[in-house]
Amino acid sequence: MLKKMKEKYTVNVIENSCGIADVAGFSVSGVGCDIRNKGDLNRLDLALVSADGFADCAGVFTTNDVKAAPVYVDIEHLRASSKIKAIVANSGNANACTGAEGLADARKMCALAAAKLGVKESEVLVCSTGRIGELLPMQKIESGIAQAHKNLAKTQDASKNAAAAILTSDTRPKTVTAKAQAAGKTFTLAGMAKGAGMIEPNMATMLCFITSDAEVEKSLLKECLLYAVNKSFNRITIDGDMSTNDTVLCLCGGASGVKITRDDAVLLEAFKDALTKVCKVLARKIVGDGEKITKVIDFKVKGAATKAQAEKICRAVANSLLVKSSWYGEDPNWGRIVDSAGYARTGLDFAAIDLFYGEIPAILKGEPVHKNKPEWKKHVSQKVFDITLNLNMGEEEESILTTDLTVGYVEFNKGE
Amino acid sequence: MLKKMKEKYTVNVIENSCGIADVAGFSVSGVGCDIRNKGDLNRLDLALVSADGFADCAGVFTTNDVKAAPVYVDIEHLRASSKIKAIVANSGNANACTGAEGLADARKMCALAAAKLGVKESEVLVCSTGRIGELLPMQKIESGIAQAHKNLAKTQDASKNAAAAILTSDTRPKTVTAKAQAAGKTFTLAGMAKGAGMIEPNMATMLCFITSDAEVEKSLLKECLLYAVNKSFNRITIDGDMSTNDTVLCLCGGASGVKITRDDAVLLEAFKDALTKVCKVLARKIVGDGEKITKVIDFKVKGAATKAQAEKICRAVANSLLVKSSWYGEDPNWGRIVDSAGYARTGLDFAAIDLFYGEIPAILKGEPVHKNKPEWKKHVSQKVFDITLNLNMGEEEESILTTDLTVGYVEFNKGE
Repeated sequence: MLKKMKEKYTVNVIENSCGIADVAGFSVSGVGCDIRNKGDLNRLDLALVSADGFADCAGVFTTNDVKAAPVYVDIEHLRASSKIKAIVANSGNANACTGAEGLADARKMCALAAAKLGVKESEVLVCSTGRIGELLPMQKIESGIAQAHKNLAKTQDASKNAAAAILTSDTRPKTVTAKAQAAGKTFTLAGMAKGAGMIEPNMATMLCFITSDAEVEKSLLKECLLYAVNKSFNRITIDGDMSTNDTVLCLCGGASGVKITRDDAVLLEAFKDALTKVCKVLARKIVGDGEKITKVIDFKVKGAATKAQAEKICRAVANSLLVKSSWYGEDPNWGRIVDSAGYARTGLDFAAIDLFYGEIPAILKGEPVHKNKPEWKKHVSQKVFDITLNLNMGEEEESILTTDLTVGYVEFNKGE
Repeated sequence: MLKKMKEKYTVNVIENSCGIADVAGFSVSGVGCDIRNKGDLNRLDLALVSADGFADCAGVFTTNDVKAAPVYVDIEHLRASSKIKAIVANSGNANACTGAEGLADARKMCALAAAKLGVKESEVLVCSTGRIGELLPMQKIESGIAQAHKNLAKTQDASKNAAAAILTSDTRPKTVTAKAQAAGKTFTLAGMAKGAGMIEPNMATMLCFITSDAEVEKSLLKECLLYAVNKSFNRITIDGDMSTNDTVLCLCGGASGVKITRDDAVLLEAFKDALTKVCKVLARKIVGDGEKITKVIDFKVKGAATKAQAEKICRAVANSLLVKSSWYGEDPNWGRIVDSAGYARTGLDFAAIDLFYGEIPAILKGEPVHKNKPEWKKHVSQKVFDITLNLNMGEEEESILTTDLTVGYVEFNKGE
């Protein structure tokens, strides 16, 4: 049945697209307004994404108890407005832990963009990323928004500028485009994201903006976005930290004339799949550009009794400092993997487990396969590799995308 | 009432004692038998602690799903025997993940020591610490046990040798002695421990052996030991990892003639307090000697609604890589502390919190006290400092002893 459905649609993913401008019905810009107060206007730090008309919109936000001001404002605006006009976003300052003044500043950012675009304040969403606990330089933001509005365009350059303007300690922009065909209809999705440090336990220090020319009613869009985020951004970790600002927004403008509804299962499936693919590509790009990492590891738990058991073990292993340090050293230290899997305390039985570096067995039914050691060593010397732990307790599985822990990470994050 | 009780007893703690030999009724030794197979007999790696007669004994063990062979054997022996004669322990090899052969080796270690001491195999306990997944060199262990038996003594040197023989990546031995006086009676406790890396979430890669000349019936001793461990070893973290071998054993030989029972509340309180102090000193020594750390931080959560909330936040902050990296850099980055407190997701309200570096306010009711920044900076430049987060939600509190995350830690643990 599922296979039959898959034959009915195709999704083509373009990993190195210009991003947002690939989607009809949106203008975009990225400008520099020196938000870090370093006298550098060449660093792009303010992005604007605007629908030609209005867009259906859904958002997924950090579950941190401490949420940045823009997160509160966006949740409020998504409740108040049935459609959204634009997103304004800045990097360099997270507008988090900034109290009543910070909240007023986040509202002001929406109001400034809304005034330029001739819409209501509640029809604009806002995002910030960067350092916590400092007030935004609002005069600079104001001139930045004016400039960004002036620069709004549908060009690849404008799109690339926007993708650059949301970055913080990222070393490269992250964009993707997906083109879907189903039942003779075509529609497009495109996304841009920023990541870098804390990417756990749910979502990341990340902003992700996705646009589409499909039309998708708000509650259905939210459902699809939650599904996609859970399969992608919630399955990655760099350092186990979760930020105050994490936000994924999806705007559907409808320029393609393709309407996604519950009534057309194939179209809905195609949209959900395309959205998930967009999120997965961006999630992988975020991990691959984690702060000073040198390795990306796809860690899988198979044969678990429950999904929850598999996930708990994935997270324990993927966040173990000892495991991550050993990956940095290209040391196939299965003892540390097994130890951290064990302290997830899910009731695993060491005598039953298998552990594989790629396809190479390291442990079979609790017995180390020592003769394979040279091959494990070779496997973990790759830049990207996978490790699979089979608990042999059931049929469930989960995986997580993680990184090594490097000397560079600690140096980079030691601060002042 | 409690205060009144406290006046009725005194506990004097000697932080730099020789350890075990301070307690009457026990002999001890530490020898080198080249367990790491590096041809180095000068490195002490096998310790023996033996009661003159038999001792009451209680143990607390790792809760990791993957337990090392000696842990299984000790749990079995403590069930089978009402009294214990001796502990044999080695460093350099953890005898973990070693299957049926490893289990047989752990039993053999007990049998070898038991034969020398003329007691039953089940009257000896065994501990191992070191690398996971390799079989013990049993011939070396056998000659080591013979030598250790020959060397058993009540001298300070013998005691120091034993304390050295259980170390792995520790840079110094960890010993303590506590002398208690209550109702005209005196008794002594002494302990030695090893720690270094993984010290979380419960206990540590740690072995801890405590002896006392008091007499304490097994089930009461277990109760006291659980209390003490919970107040000490379960309140420390270095890297958030928990080992397969963690073990705390307490042997009470009774040479002082002082019997601790439930009927004498003052004596019982004195014993419990002395035992807790011994554990706390050793826990602090373990953290202070964490692998390549440069700072020890006492992080407290006050004003929590529940103990569980306070503890959850303590652990989130104390294990945050970003927080720990900032401490390494002597950066008083309160944003990261608040962020990690928030992702513990206990329902804290940022607008209500106070944060103090020592006595210096950094945040009061959610408002940063920016003018104090030079003082925060000075506070975190100390080798040992405390930070207090007041949630202002209730009356509960918890604290945790933690460390910074250093470039040296990653270098040290990257392995081969």
